[in-house]
Amino acid sequence: MSLLENTLKKIEPQDNASRAAARARLEQLTMPHWALGRLMDLAEDLAAMTRSTRPPVARKTVVVMAGDHGVAASGVSQYPQEVTVQMVHNFVNGGAGCNALARQVGAQVLVVDVGVAGDLSTLVASGKIISKRVASGTANIHTGPAMSREQAIRSIEAGIEVALSLADSVDVFATGEMGIANTTPSSAIVAALTCRAVEEITGRGTGIDDARLQNKIAVIKEALRLNQPDPSDAIDVLAKVGGFEIGAIAGLILGAAALKKPVLVDGFITTAGALIAQGLSPVSAQYMIAAHRSVEPGHRAAQEHLGKEPLLDLNLRLGEGTGAVLAMNLVEASARVLTDVATFAEASVSTAH
Amino acid sequence: MSLLENTLKKIEPQDNASRAAARARLEQLTMPHWALGRLMDLAEDLAAMTRSTRPPVARKTVVVMAGDHGVAASGVSQYPQEVTVQMVHNFVNGGAGCNALARQVGAQVLVVDVGVAGDLSTLVASGKIISKRVASGTANIHTGPAMSREQAIRSIEAGIEVALSLADSVDVFATGEMGIANTTPSSAIVAALTCRAVEEITGRGTGIDDARLQNKIAVIKEALRLNQPDPSDAIDVLAKVGGFEIGAIAGLILGAAALKKPVLVDGFITTAGALIAQGLSPVSAQYMIAAHRSVEPGHRAAQEHLGKEPLLDLNLRLGEGTGAVLAMNLVEASARVLTDVATFAEASVSTAH
Repeated sequence: MSLLENTLKKIEPQDNASRAAARARLEQLTMPHWALGRLMDLAEDLAAMTRSTRPPVARKTVVVMAGDHGVAASGVSQYPQEVTVQMVHNFVNGGAGCNALARQVGAQVLVVDVGVAGDLSTLVASGKIISKRVASGTANIHTGPAMSREQAIRSIEAGIEVALSLADSVDVFATGEMGIANTTPSSAIVAALTCRAVEEITGRGTGIDDARLQNKIAVIKEALRLNQPDPSDAIDVLAKVGGFEIGAIAGLILGAAALKKPVLVDGFITTAGALIAQGLSPVSAQYMIAAHRSVEPGHRAAQEHLGKEPLLDLNLRLGEGTGAVLAMNLVEASARVLTDVATFAEASVSTAH
Repeated sequence: MSLLENTLKKIEPQDNASRAAARARLEQLTMPHWALGRLMDLAEDLAAMTRSTRPPVARKTVVVMAGDHGVAASGVSQYPQEVTVQMVHNFVNGGAGCNALARQVGAQVLVVDVGVAGDLSTLVASGKIISKRVASGTANIHTGPAMSREQAIRSIEAGIEVALSLADSVDVFATGEMGIANTTPSSAIVAALTCRAVEEITGRGTGIDDARLQNKIAVIKEALRLNQPDPSDAIDVLAKVGGFEIGAIAGLILGAAALKKPVLVDGFITTAGALIAQGLSPVSAQYMIAAHRSVEPGHRAAQEHLGKEPLLDLNLRLGEGTGAVLAMNLVEASARVLTDVATFAEASVSTAH
């Protein structure tokens, strides 16, 4: 049995007994009933994911999956493709947005090359990034499939391998990504899997103007018409119009779910990866936490398809896992509510009359 | 000149030069323009408040102002008045919601008795809480003014004294409160200062049922009719329909503003305190950060009156400063964006084409 098949088999639903035990305690805490709202909802989820009323959340890692996209040649982005390599160096040097926010919450940043169109061998040799290269960037979805079905599976398994390698050292995962042009395959995936109109779920990515946005929409429509991704087959969607880092994000999520650990889903691109994971294993969504609502207009549709309401809404549109890292504070806070707040009986506080 | 007058004189607007310097750096960071949205807006504000492009945010304290309310006798709350004293003990023992969330972000919890109707002398003597007692609870606003004008000024100055005493040890303040029945004076204050209908800005507080909610609305309407608070005179509003801890919250905010330090405003009650501060010094609002939008229906109206959009919206309705403490993570994250993220030039990353 393949790693992917084996992982899918290991994904079990949240545990109802742990959820009930968490709820029983939360309902006795020294506060009006459920007065910490979504923190308490999340605390229940954490208990049900981890099978514990003391969910471990201290060890946190954001995995930044990096890959390039042939469709960058079709003028869909404001930045040249070389920025992917440059930003990987920026992550390694600790100078990117995700590094700054990871330091605030005490999270590790792990960068994985899943298919960057450039030479990162020095960083791999020095152990500063992990290599799970599938190929040197995808093919252009505007003129054909992004990758073969085998490459799609390989990219997902790359993410699973990363998750499993962290099984003993990480309590909470966050998904991050870097890849110039990757809102384009993400919009294509979301359109294919949610059956929404391309115009409705395509945005300005890094900040393209109206003319480039119209071009981007036309490119995505043509990619969908030409490649005919099958929405009932998430691997086919990934292969036809996806990206290597998007497959690896799906794999990271599936791996986290198999490990019964929470995984924070960041912005539009990682949510596209989450939709691939959901397509392969609907139950895996029970381990996903939607960190935030990004500016990208397709994010809402994608989150609705996942059945997730985001925790934060701060006009973010950076990616890299920044919103997911920010929300790690809320995961920690939720666990603290469950473990650190006294009950009425413990604190000798009078209950409602 | 009184402490209050002196403090009001010391409150200066945000510094435009520091804001411009922060913006100049934020616009050069290795990310699409303003891609971290509200974190960048907040980073600008922090620079403009603190006069620094490296705003200090490490030392954080939530000040929980505690007081009791004569109007509790009019059946407006679900909990007996003795809970105020019990919860002060819970704060001191580290078992309340605000303690749990403060530990997550590394903030201190400081409890101040501004007028609890109970004996807290043991906790004061052992240095576990600070006493700034004005009286043993307010009078019932349903049948007369909450306090004298002198007591109102005294409660505000109590908050100023606390802020000034922390000038050398705190970078970021958060407002917290405890006082059974204190959503009732808060609704009265918000109704008086925003000219909104009482029905529109009165909610269920700790969770009262429909019958008690109708009674609460009637009590507030009668309190406003009987006491006739003057909306152009914030001290009059505080004296007629306020509370000691609400005055102290206003004072804490004024003190923070005089010290040019950011102050996170929490839920409905502390926002009522913020409205009193704004009434005394409109410029003080430039140092306030609205932490979250609570479930209490009047919170939106109060925040609109302050001109503030909250950072979080998590269905919280606990108070104690819990939402403000949670948002301290976002304040730290915003400062990190300004100080820790590399510019395009520093990181040798290509800019948009």
